[in-house]
Amino acid sequence: MSLSEYFPIYEKLSAKDQEMLTSLAQLRKVPQGSIIHNGGMDCLGLLVIRSGQLRSYISSDEGREITIYRLFERDICLFSASCIMQNIQFDITISAEKETEFWIIPPKFYKELMARDVEVANYTNDLMATRFTELMWLVEQIMWKSFDKRLAKFLLEEYYLEGEPETLKITHEIIAGHLGTAREVVTRMLKYFQTEGMVKLTRGSIAIVDEVRLGDLAEE
Amino acid sequence: MSLSEYFPIYEKLSAKDQEMLTSLAQLRKVPQGSIIHNGGMDCLGLLVIRSGQLRSYISSDEGREITIYRLFERDICLFSASCIMQNIQFDITISAEKETEFWIIPPKFYKELMARDVEVANYTNDLMATRFTELMWLVEQIMWKSFDKRLAKFLLEEYYLEGEPETLKITHEIIAGHLGTAREVVTRMLKYFQTEGMVKLTRGSIAIVDEVRLGDLAEE
Repeated sequence: MSLSEYFPIYEKLSAKDQEMLTSLAQLRKVPQGSIIHNGGMDCLGLLVIRSGQLRSYISSDEGREITIYRLFERDICLFSASCIMQNIQFDITISAEKETEFWIIPPKFYKELMARDVEVANYTNDLMATRFTELMWLVEQIMWKSFDKRLAKFLLEEYYLEGEPETLKITHEIIAGHLGTAREVVTRMLKYFQTEGMVKLTRGSIAIVDEVRLGDLAEE
Repeated sequence: MSLSEYFPIYEKLSAKDQEMLTSLAQLRKVPQGSIIHNGGMDCLGLLVIRSGQLRSYISSDEGREITIYRLFERDICLFSASCIMQNIQFDITISAEKETEFWIIPPKFYKELMARDVEVANYTNDLMATRFTELMWLVEQIMWKSFDKRLAKFLLEEYYLEGEPETLKITHEIIAGHLGTAREVVTRMLKYFQTEGMVKLTRGSIAIVDEVRLGDLAEE
C-alpha cells in the first residue's frame, strides 16, 4: 500500500504534484512511546498514518497532561506542521501509543502546494474543521460532564481499541494524563467502580466486568 | 466605510467577485442582547463586524454557559456559516453584547467562492487556525488555571473593553456564563477579592479598586 492510497485527495493532484509528493514523503516507523513532535517550535511536517496509534496532548507547567485527540490508520496530522500556517500558535506534543508507521510530508512542500492548489487548501480546511469539532467536544466534556462519566467512556474506548482484552494494561497515572486530572482522582473513582462491580482492579491492569453498566454511565 | 475595507482579501478577488460580494452582502444592525446565530442547524453566513461586540458561547443541557470567543470591529465570524464545511459539527450561539453592525456574506456564495479561489480557501484556513488557537488557549485556562486567576483576568478585560469606567455594570450571573461556572462561585470569589481590597461590590456593579494586584493575580 503506497501513500497514494492513504492521501485522500491524491487523485485530484496534477501528475507532476503526485510525483513530487511521492518522492518527497518519507516513510518512518517509530516504536511505542516515541515523542514524534514536541511544541510549537517544532515543524516536522504533515503525518499520514499507515498503521499504529498516535496521541496528541498538551501539558501544564506542573507536568499534568490532557489528551486532545488520537490518530489512527489513515488519519492525517496537521498540527505537526504548524509552520505551514502562522495562526497556529499552541504547543502540542505527539507521541506513539503503539508502534506506528507514517509518512511525513515536508511542510515547505505542503505549504507551497496549499498556496496554489485550491483542492489542497480546501482539504486542509476540512482537516482543521474536524479537529476543531473534536476540540469543542472536549471542551463540552470538561465543562459539563462529571468525572465518573468521562472515566467510564475512556475505559470503554480503551477496551474496544485493544480488542476487548481480558484486562487492560494501563496505569492510573496514564489514565490521569489522558483525562487531565491527578492520579489520586483516577484511583478513587476506579475503586468506586470496583465496589459497584463494574471493573476489577489488579496491579497495573483493569478488567472490564460490567460493560453494559459502564456504557450506561458513559452515555448519561 | 464599505465592506471592501473590512474584508481583508477583497483586493485579491477578481473584479467580478468583488462586485458579487458587495452586491450580495447585507449590512445589518442589531440591538444589544440579540441572538444572531443559534446552534449547528442555523447557517446565516459569514459575519464581518463593522462595529460593536459579539459573544460566541456554548451551553449545557442545564443552561450553564461558557464563552468561547468574542468578536470586535473587523473580526470575521466563520462559525455562523457552519454549512460551508461539513466537518463543522458543533452548536454555538452568537449574541450581541453591544449594539452591533455587521455584513452578512451568504454561505452559498462564500462556499462556491472558496471552492474555486485558492486565496479565499487559504484565508478561511487562517481564520479557522486563529479560532483553533483561541480554543486551545481556553482549554489550557480551564484545565490548569485556578478560578481566582481566570476571574481576575476576566474583570480586567471587561474593565479595559469598557474604557476603564468607575464601575463595571455586570451581574455575577453574566460573569458565571462567561467563565462556565455557577453564580455562587463567582459571588464567593468576588467577596474574597473585596476583602482583599481588589474590588468594591455594589448592587449590579463592580468597581476595580486595585488594578495592579488584579493584574498580578491574572498573570501568575
